Amino acid sequence: MKNNTRESGWEGVTVNSTELRERIGAAMKGAATLVIKNAHVVNVFTREVTLADVAVYEDTIIGVGEYSCDNEYDAKGVYLCPGFIDAHVHIESSMVTPNSFARVVLPHGTTAIIADPHEIANVCGTEGIWAMYKMSNMMPLWVYFMMPSCVPATPFDNTGARILADDMRQLKQKSRMLGLGEVMDYVSTTRCEESMLEKLVLFEDMRIDGHAPLLSGNALNAYCVAGPSTDHECSCFDEVLEKLRAGMSILIRVGSAANGVREMLTEIADRGLPTDNMMFCTDDKHLENTLREGHINCIARLAVECGIAPVDAVRMASYNAARAYGLKRQGAIAPGYRATMVLFDNLRDFNVVDVFAMGRRYEDTACDIGHILPADVLNTINCAPVSARDLSLRRDVLGANARADGLFPVIRTIPGQLVTELKYERLRFEDGEFAADERFNKLAVIERHHATGNVGVGVVEGLQLKDGAICASVAHDSHNIVVVGDNDEDMLLAVESLVECGGGFAVVHRGIVLARLPLPIAGLMTDAPVEEVLRKQRALVDAAKLLGAPDESDPLVLLSFLALPVIPNVRLTDEGLIDVGKTEYIYKNKAKGE
Amino acid sequence: MKNNTRESGWEGVTVNSTELRERIGAAMKGAATLVIKNAHVVNVFTREVTLADVAVYEDTIIGVGEYSCDNEYDAKGVYLCPGFIDAHVHIESSMVTPNSFARVVLPHGTTAIIADPHEIANVCGTEGIWAMYKMSNMMPLWVYFMMPSCVPATPFDNTGARILADDMRQLKQKSRMLGLGEVMDYVSTTRCEESMLEKLVLFEDMRIDGHAPLLSGNALNAYCVAGPSTDHECSCFDEVLEKLRAGMSILIRVGSAANGVREMLTEIADRGLPTDNMMFCTDDKHLENTLREGHINCIARLAVECGIAPVDAVRMASYNAARAYGLKRQGAIAPGYRATMVLFDNLRDFNVVDVFAMGRRYEDTACDIGHILPADVLNTINCAPVSARDLSLRRDVLGANARADGLFPVIRTIPGQLVTELKYERLRFEDGEFAADERFNKLAVIERHHATGNVGVGVVEGLQLKDGAICASVAHDSHNIVVVGDNDEDMLLAVESLVECGGGFAVVHRGIVLARLPLPIAGLMTDAPVEEVLRKQRALVDAAKLLGAPDESDPLVLLSFLALPVIPNVRLTDEGLIDVGKTEYIYKNKAKGE
Repeated sequence: MKNNTRESGWEGVTVNSTELRERIGAAMKGAATLVIKNAHVVNVFTREVTLADVAVYEDTIIGVGEYSCDNEYDAKGVYLCPGFIDAHVHIESSMVTPNSFARVVLPHGTTAIIADPHEIANVCGTEGIWAMYKMSNMMPLWVYFMMPSCVPATPFDNTGARILADDMRQLKQKSRMLGLGEVMDYVSTTRCEESMLEKLVLFEDMRIDGHAPLLSGNALNAYCVAGPSTDHECSCFDEVLEKLRAGMSILIRVGSAANGVREMLTEIADRGLPTDNMMFCTDDKHLENTLREGHINCIARLAVECGIAPVDAVRMASYNAARAYGLKRQGAIAPGYRATMVLFDNLRDFNVVDVFAMGRRYEDTACDIGHILPADVLNTINCAPVSARDLSLRRDVLGANARADGLFPVIRTIPGQLVTELKYERLRFEDGEFAADERFNKLAVIERHHATGNVGVGVVEGLQLKDGAICASVAHDSHNIVVVGDNDEDMLLAVESLVECGGGFAVVHRGIVLARLPLPIAGLMTDAPVEEVLRKQRALVDAAKLLGAPDESDPLVLLSFLALPVIPNVRLTDEGLIDVGKTEYIYKNKAKGE
Repeated sequence: MKNNTRESGWEGVTVNSTELRERIGAAMKGAATLVIKNAHVVNVFTREVTLADVAVYEDTIIGVGEYSCDNEYDAKGVYLCPGFIDAHVHIESSMVTPNSFARVVLPHGTTAIIADPHEIANVCGTEGIWAMYKMSNMMPLWVYFMMPSCVPATPFDNTGARILADDMRQLKQKSRMLGLGEVMDYVSTTRCEESMLEKLVLFEDMRIDGHAPLLSGNALNAYCVAGPSTDHECSCFDEVLEKLRAGMSILIRVGSAANGVREMLTEIADRGLPTDNMMFCTDDKHLENTLREGHINCIARLAVECGIAPVDAVRMASYNAARAYGLKRQGAIAPGYRATMVLFDNLRDFNVVDVFAMGRRYEDTACDIGHILPADVLNTINCAPVSARDLSLRRDVLGANARADGLFPVIRTIPGQLVTELKYERLRFEDGEFAADERFNKLAVIERHHATGNVGVGVVEGLQLKDGAICASVAHDSHNIVVVGDNDEDMLLAVESLVECGGGFAVVHRGIVLARLPLPIAGLMTDAPVEEVLRKQRALVDAAKLLGAPDESDPLVLLSFLALPVIPNVRLTDEGLIDVGKTEYIYKNKAKGE
């Protein structure tokens, strides 16, 4: 039975009067199950830092002052902060399940995240969101959700699912669902497309995340009027200032992307801009980088380095996000708040001494939850059989808009960037078929959700693969299968190898699978251990380099973005080659059925 | 059919995609229906004050910058602030309906209030709350609600209704209902009484207002753990500091009560305490005082006088309250926010130049709504016939706990205070009946909700009435009929006169009704014009003074609190005389049925 009543409870934990009675009673008596002694406690409300004990009863803080109990932890005078919060992140980009993700970020002091399951939603629709919701229940990491707002992200995306406002109603009622996720399609929004307006109206009573790089003036005003009230895409201080003035909460992002962050933080500090509507997020960050340099704590460190007062950096990393997203029991060390806290060596380096989650000292084993993987998100690769014929790229197709000079359109990658260039080049053909080589690789995008048989084929310059192919089912945002190589045999083997394991990444060289990372969950994630994932990722990159992939870019990441029709300037979809600026096809490949 | 789905929309205004489309389009084009030109605009997000124009489309702000349109208002350089918000108020205490109340506060710049209909709920139960909700719909004043949490306020109160958690479920879903109202019964809360815990659990996912004067230490911690997260009862700076540290939002109150406010504000300013969790409220404030000195703007004035930065005072008066209570479109001048703004001469005196509400310059006639008065809240006086016999106070009853020295218990009022003293005095009796006189008046509390015939009778010293009686149906919190006088005849006439008009206040002298204020709505409010109410109130006070009531206290207010069994030290209910400290009856009058 459909239930449209909003779930109650402490953001996902249903509390009953018996539990509440126990907590109140424990606070009245000062009867703790854990006391953290002698910590410099950061109070986000008064901005004070005072030496005190913190009393915890089960998963609730019951007091700050002088306490003792049988279970004491001596903080030895170091700094106790509320657990840090990542205000915007896509778990799927880590390629691991929520509990593996938790295992990586918790030791860096991140105890809550606000996740937008946009990637899995593009593959599995609302069932994918439900799956993420279930897989992240009752963990030492608090996982909250924003409803993916743009599935598919553009009209050009042939995704596994399309999510309309009506599909969102039931999930909206879940207590860990905080609002509508990043409205990245700001064009539809400011152009008032009906299906987008319906979503904005549905979520008008909740929070709505924005995503509006460089939007300004009237267009920004219109976007704010539409509903989005946060932004994580600022790349310079002036953009921060304009959006803050317009009432947006600013999410300072340091993840895979971190454009202009140092300049922004320095200006914010120098001008004494209020930081109470600013917080931190990673958006996407490689697990390897998180393991090496930290997570939200490394943004706090950067903020202090740029001149932000340490206590304000702590507020930005915790309380400000909790308040902006309405998490009333998160982000502070005070009676009634959740006992998720982190001890740092100092408020400059933010090196973690210890983490407290669920009312006890965090240990790695706390993440051994063993959630059952919902069947809905397994075996999601559903593509028609692929043969050499499907990879054919005939001179007349490629030349549909051929120029008088006999040159043909080519995607050129730019070292170290995700942006591509559209170039026209002289290509080699054999019997009217494009003949790939080391300079001009063949790129194919194979529809894999509904077995339509759609295959887009194009030419890419810059990957420089020789005698091999790379294949991926992680291909933003539609996550069709993308394969690139200099010969059809290796490309077909790479695809076959990927289909066999439910998706992931594979590198093939002369008929041999050199490296493979299976991602059986939606073709995006795996429940394999993090160490194994990282090892296989490194093996994939090494193998790709062996084929000739240049050093400047991660070839896996580059491949994952070649089919995303929102990044300039030219992309390949399962239907053909798109000029992103003009939002029109340069040529369309024939669909299989035609 | 009961509908348990949370109402959606912009806090009470259901928006549809057509309206949203219009607003977005207007913002895109900068096409305003009103432009306020040349104002010093206060930006609560950046703390900047800049000379600019504000563009409004219908009831929505669509931009701040340079604008023009056919309908321009020249602000001539004075200061434009977001409309001010009263974060906690009981409309019923004004004795007028919500639209009359609006007419008084709007000209002082208060454009939104958070009302707790605790008084009418004690008379009419949830039907009273529904009535207030309906009577405050679609007004130029935004009226939000908190659900009265303590009806009745104590086990001693025989009220018109009892509201349990289950009774709250449907009203909780209304979009202007923001949470659970002031949990004044902090004793039941920290003692974990089941019926209170059930309400706290029900509202765990919303805001819960506190009311905990002088609560401190473990008891305060326990109270915070239970759920309340605001407090409007602080009377000194140390109390502010302790509650702020514990995570409570502090509501600085200047209404009928304003204990220690100047000291608190001065210390907050001197110590540079963050004010982002502080806001303003009146709780109860006489209309006459509001008309004379202002409303929330007079608290802002006081704050600046005490050293708070003017922009912070504006934030406290607007944005901070909106944020604390989750009003996402209130409290700021920015695109998408509601066009409720106020122009002040400067940010020191906060004298109102003009008010903008519903997207246009506010005029008094905007409050002429003419809501239909719901029948549920009319004709609420339901008491058994009262005769001289009911007012009898026999020596044996009064002497139930008589002391060996032959002295009898008396309520003594203290000039200028609501607190009373329990005294033992030598009294005069005739035929075993207490004989009232000018010094020792007789006080009676007549149950008026369920015609139980309960009448509590006692002796009060300090009102000094001679040859007359005063009667009221406004008697916190149970709002039974309270009557005081020196002779039974005048007391009976006063009661009769009040019952006849559905409740209110009356003063009788030697068989003549000298003055009367009918309050036909729940015996608490009237839809008569404000001017008439004020005139009749003055006439009542003058008449009471004529009978001998002392100058130090407002005799009507004093009478209204003599039956409230939560204020020290001794009170009379419809069952008998209570020692508030011991929470036990000193004596009980026989109930009529006995």
